[in-house]
Amino acid sequence: MDSSRKLRVAVDAMGGDYAPAHEVAGTLAALKETNNAFEALLVGRKQDLEEQLQKSHPTGLSYSIIPATEVITMEDSPTAALKQKRDSSLAVGIRLHQEGKADAFVSAGNTGAVLSATTLILGRTKGVSRPTIGTFLPAEGGPCLLVDAGTNVDCRPRHLFEFAIMGSIYYSLVTKKERPTVALLNVGEEKGKGTEVVNEAYKMLESSNVNFIGNVEGRDILRKKADVVVCDGFVGNIVLKFGESIPGFLKGRLSKFAQEGMVRKLIVGLAKGTLKNALRDFDPNVEGGVPVLGANGISIIGHGSSTPTGIKNMILRGVEVARAELHKHIEKALSASRSAEKPEMSLPAGAYKGE
Amino acid sequence: MDSSRKLRVAVDAMGGDYAPAHEVAGTLAALKETNNAFEALLVGRKQDLEEQLQKSHPTGLSYSIIPATEVITMEDSPTAALKQKRDSSLAVGIRLHQEGKADAFVSAGNTGAVLSATTLILGRTKGVSRPTIGTFLPAEGGPCLLVDAGTNVDCRPRHLFEFAIMGSIYYSLVTKKERPTVALLNVGEEKGKGTEVVNEAYKMLESSNVNFIGNVEGRDILRKKADVVVCDGFVGNIVLKFGESIPGFLKGRLSKFAQEGMVRKLIVGLAKGTLKNALRDFDPNVEGGVPVLGANGISIIGHGSSTPTGIKNMILRGVEVARAELHKHIEKALSASRSAEKPEMSLPAGAYKGE
Repeated sequence: MDSSRKLRVAVDAMGGDYAPAHEVAGTLAALKETNNAFEALLVGRKQDLEEQLQKSHPTGLSYSIIPATEVITMEDSPTAALKQKRDSSLAVGIRLHQEGKADAFVSAGNTGAVLSATTLILGRTKGVSRPTIGTFLPAEGGPCLLVDAGTNVDCRPRHLFEFAIMGSIYYSLVTKKERPTVALLNVGEEKGKGTEVVNEAYKMLESSNVNFIGNVEGRDILRKKADVVVCDGFVGNIVLKFGESIPGFLKGRLSKFAQEGMVRKLIVGLAKGTLKNALRDFDPNVEGGVPVLGANGISIIGHGSSTPTGIKNMILRGVEVARAELHKHIEKALSASRSAEKPEMSLPAGAYKGE
Repeated sequence: MDSSRKLRVAVDAMGGDYAPAHEVAGTLAALKETNNAFEALLVGRKQDLEEQLQKSHPTGLSYSIIPATEVITMEDSPTAALKQKRDSSLAVGIRLHQEGKADAFVSAGNTGAVLSATTLILGRTKGVSRPTIGTFLPAEGGPCLLVDAGTNVDCRPRHLFEFAIMGSIYYSLVTKKERPTVALLNVGEEKGKGTEVVNEAYKMLESSNVNFIGNVEGRDILRKKADVVVCDGFVGNIVLKFGESIPGFLKGRLSKFAQEGMVRKLIVGLAKGTLKNALRDFDPNVEGGVPVLGANGISIIGHGSSTPTGIKNMILRGVEVARAELHKHIEKALSASRSAEKPEMSLPAGAYKGE
């Protein structure tokens, strides 16, 4: 990347549940916060975006509008939508990046469609069998990256091995920790436990340069036994969705308990507020978005229900990951892992410190 | 079973973490509560058991001691222990059942050893490829049975299909619900989602007599979308252990939050107590124990850390399951599923209503 010019981020301004309002507000907030450290390309319906921009009277911020007439909704089938809506903000935005007119693409739109477009238009990084997505969980003593978070359900050992490498590099970039610990999610700690696929992946990781600490169990995720926890997307999706259901479940339990008297009602009210505060960093808007690891470029996926702060954080993540050229580090590590060399597990010092 | 005589339950009195104290206390409590509805065979070191019994001066309770000189500990390797300690309370107890001298066996000992002994000594029910264990979770609106809870990690479609049938029959026995709903745990609700194994199992269940409602996601377990949720033991183990870690994680979060001031400390104290009360039925002692589904007999596994109440409930579960002759219903349903007939999915009315 030419470091003499500003980094350009293409924002799918029509993507999220509250688009374009949150998208525009989040973009302007990111520009303000970084003092125009990047250039935002707001991709979407010109008139809608202009109307939205007029509401906040932004001055002196480095953004421009890139017109796209169509919108892929949350209900659209990913592959059909990409074929039929060729002028969607998603397709136009990601093509900007593919053609070198933007250095990163970010979207809080239809996750399946963003993933498909990323794989189809940007393609895979050399050496990557399957792109993946990891999610940070706020564990005891720092974040834990669970990867694959739901992208690839049927995995072979090589896939888990690649997730470990890509997750390790991404973890290093975000947390600045140089050799993050990596573990396989399994039913027991001892080598030889679990499925054949996990066992084969264990052997591959053991003889790699990954800072592999062995197996961890389901209870170890939130206890932060490892920085990066690797599993297939079937397990990852189920664990994450099970976890997501717990705050609501607790709320229901507490409400039921409150029905048994006024004093209890009062205590439960306090308890609910306290729990909410104590779990504030479980809010997905803090993370903002996650990159498609193994894509041949920078594509960040945010939550559909992102707040303006969520959109801002997704964009800042995009800037960070684009500056560090995450995909190039992944390519280097994976092509090394395919040759006799040991793959490099962390970014070279200073790589993520910006332009 | 001859219904004219008392049902006999062999209790591994040396099994749990607090054996024989909790085992003896729990046995006596079960006899008292049911007014000697069954006969307890306390299996273990004669002297240890006599000492324990003297402490509580039980009178008029229908128990006897069956001597066994050895003890399998929690640290023992299951298969090695069974080979080396042939006179262990576990092996002697389960052989009593196998020889027809007891109608059920219960143990809060080394889970792996109980499972191995059950499979080796009792064998499998005809038609069962792999015995399994399910666990009840206190979901919104009633219990949800997650099966396999960790026994079989690498599963084929036929295994999941059998878990669905066995889980359905067991659910029906415990809750008295006649045709419990059964679902496959998956990454999406639509047919065709997920792994190949789950997809094949879907097709088998669809054309069976199981009250199959399709796929459910991780977030649906505690929301009780289905009575019985079927998965392989790899996923089951990880989900359950992840879930188990959450109360401790919340406690840690709340404690950290409490450090920020006196008022917070007070509120957090209240919140912790409230949470504990609201989640009381997550205590494994309420369930007591779970039968090995697909064993050719009745073998109940309890938690190692069972309280006397936990042991009591494990024994009562054993009595209930033995009276209903769970294994015979499973045999009937599974042999039917192997022939052209449709398997029967619930117990005949009244089957579990006792002698």
